[in-house]
Amino acid sequence: MWTERMAKRTNLFESSVVRELLKLTAKKDLISFAGGLPGPETFPVEEFREASNKVLKDNGIQALQYTITEGYPPLREFLASYLSKKGIKCSVKNILLTNGSQQALDLIAKVMCDPGDYILLEEPSYLGAIQAFTAYETKFATIPIDKNGTLTNLLEEKINKYNPKFVYLLPNFHNPAGVTLSLDRRKEVIEVANKTGALIIEDDPYGDLRYTGESLSPIKSFDTNENVIYLGTFSKILSPGVRIGWIVAPDSIMIKLVEAKQGTDLCSSPFIHMVVYELCRNNILETQIPKIKKIYGERCKLMLDAIAKYFPEGSDWTKPEGGLFIWAQLQEKYNTKELFTKAIEKNVAYVPGFCFYANGGGESTMRLNFSNAQNDMIEVGIKRLSEIF
Amino acid sequence: MWTERMAKRTNLFESSVVRELLKLTAKKDLISFAGGLPGPETFPVEEFREASNKVLKDNGIQALQYTITEGYPPLREFLASYLSKKGIKCSVKNILLTNGSQQALDLIAKVMCDPGDYILLEEPSYLGAIQAFTAYETKFATIPIDKNGTLTNLLEEKINKYNPKFVYLLPNFHNPAGVTLSLDRRKEVIEVANKTGALIIEDDPYGDLRYTGESLSPIKSFDTNENVIYLGTFSKILSPGVRIGWIVAPDSIMIKLVEAKQGTDLCSSPFIHMVVYELCRNNILETQIPKIKKIYGERCKLMLDAIAKYFPEGSDWTKPEGGLFIWAQLQEKYNTKELFTKAIEKNVAYVPGFCFYANGGGESTMRLNFSNAQNDMIEVGIKRLSEIF
Repeated sequence: MWTERMAKRTNLFESSVVRELLKLTAKKDLISFAGGLPGPETFPVEEFREASNKVLKDNGIQALQYTITEGYPPLREFLASYLSKKGIKCSVKNILLTNGSQQALDLIAKVMCDPGDYILLEEPSYLGAIQAFTAYETKFATIPIDKNGTLTNLLEEKINKYNPKFVYLLPNFHNPAGVTLSLDRRKEVIEVANKTGALIIEDDPYGDLRYTGESLSPIKSFDTNENVIYLGTFSKILSPGVRIGWIVAPDSIMIKLVEAKQGTDLCSSPFIHMVVYELCRNNILETQIPKIKKIYGERCKLMLDAIAKYFPEGSDWTKPEGGLFIWAQLQEKYNTKELFTKAIEKNVAYVPGFCFYANGGGESTMRLNFSNAQNDMIEVGIKRLSEIF
Repeated sequence: MWTERMAKRTNLFESSVVRELLKLTAKKDLISFAGGLPGPETFPVEEFREASNKVLKDNGIQALQYTITEGYPPLREFLASYLSKKGIKCSVKNILLTNGSQQALDLIAKVMCDPGDYILLEEPSYLGAIQAFTAYETKFATIPIDKNGTLTNLLEEKINKYNPKFVYLLPNFHNPAGVTLSLDRRKEVIEVANKTGALIIEDDPYGDLRYTGESLSPIKSFDTNENVIYLGTFSKILSPGVRIGWIVAPDSIMIKLVEAKQGTDLCSSPFIHMVVYELCRNNILETQIPKIKKIYGERCKLMLDAIAKYFPEGSDWTKPEGGLFIWAQLQEKYNTKELFTKAIEKNVAYVPGFCFYANGGGESTMRLNFSNAQNDMIEVGIKRLSEIF
């Protein structure tokens, strides 16, 4: 009855396959390599309990009242200092706290994009970003990636051809592709941005979770001209349930992002901001990050070994140095969307690769998450998966 | 540098006067009748501490993980039962938890409105709603109100003339106008909606906070034809810092609201949902609501008495039966926007009425909040205010 009276953008909505898959994880005995959930054993539950107690004992009134749209200042101060260690210099006024990185993506599109505007994305790219942007009726141009990340040698040409409102990049342990943008290419992104005046969105949810190799400086650390917006989140290093991400943006964009957030939800919960600040102030990340790296690094290796053992001949897959995902390219005869229901029958789940292609493609690819599966289930799950081929 | 490349909608953004005023409340010795903040002495801080403790002890992992977009099912079940006592029959699947009511307004506009679409609002109407809708480049048609609320006898004519995507109404203790829609007019809203097929948004943040007179059933309770979306929030009966509101909507709209929220922020914090559920399960509202009514009822009376004593001749103001606001109409020679800086100099703040007029007007009106001021400051503040006239 109401459908025909809705906004045009609703025709472009598609219920998130990832979200629907999260529901499937409720199926008993299913081993899920879908989703992007952290391993629950990494959550510092007891520390959260103590921090919540302290916040409500010491500052209960402030925690339960409205607050400023920008977010709790001490947590933003902590982040400014935390980011400076990555080579990102920013002041508190250039940091906006969001309800997870997803809200950052929504607000950026809200501020930058009119219907029909182009966004330049990697192919494949993060499904949640494609969904957030699609709600603003944008078009997508894509740029391929290889084992060293985005093919930055094509960047200038693509920018000149499509004049995108921004370029959306995931340089560290790419979701879904698992690859990492090389240092040279990071510098090339800045060169091209300076030359073309393009706006770069650097999304870095997994940067701290490196299991092998050396850390690379963020693109933002080379940005001398305010061409880069940097996004981070507590979801993968502390807890996704707190729903706290952050945007580092130049003044002129920050003003509009804050106004957009005002209209969208007034402010986020000061209680949660204060609890997370209490944890950060007590250096929780210094124990959390090594703990998570050890657990996920082991799971990553177990999954890579199992894939090598069980996947059919002619398959190829990334060997991620960090993050949460392995990306597999199967022979063309396999359609991972069609095979998905078979996988569920075998009690194992993945995300069909087509979900990550803004303009179609990826029929024989799949994303495998290793952070949320128990160690002894990884080989079992990959073996089950191999039976569907 | 980036401004000229932004989305057209950013030209319509206006930094919220209310939000900016919240910042002014930091000024020492200022008595603020601006904002719409609850009185902090109403917050059940200790109960929050106990509930947080319990949630993290019993279900810490679930509280810190991702969750479904719709929100924590037991809290939605509680709300279904809570709403049934108001005569609103709805099942859990028709309830979506949002980050405060503000996100409800944003999501509804996102789902319903294309640029240029009309929304029919009361004049005056809630500033935050005007801001949320403006981001979707809507036009506004308005309908006047009197001491019994919206002039519903004009509703059919206005709907036929403007064909609005929806009609946005605040029937209880209107923000900013303080008035309450009479029972007859509530029924008339449903009659007109049934006849015209219009969608009604009933925003009810203050419905439980009635200090005098008899409670009136929500418009939604008379809705037999799925023409009404009902909005509520914990902000005024528990804590705004939890950022939890809710939408009750028909199936076809709910599907799209959930998809819109997925793209906007994936999900809200399960931790906060679980804490608030723990409080509700233990019947906190049964002690909170009477406690808040007693405090605010007293403040309302104190402010009405002070206004009667100090406001200049020729002023008129509403005598609210509940809620948080008194609305004053001064003589035309007073411009409340111009007088505002004088008020700040005198260390007292209000919201100039023009903020609540979607299409201009209201130059001699002001909104006065009584929930957030200490009793002994109310007369002092109104006296200070009278000095600016």
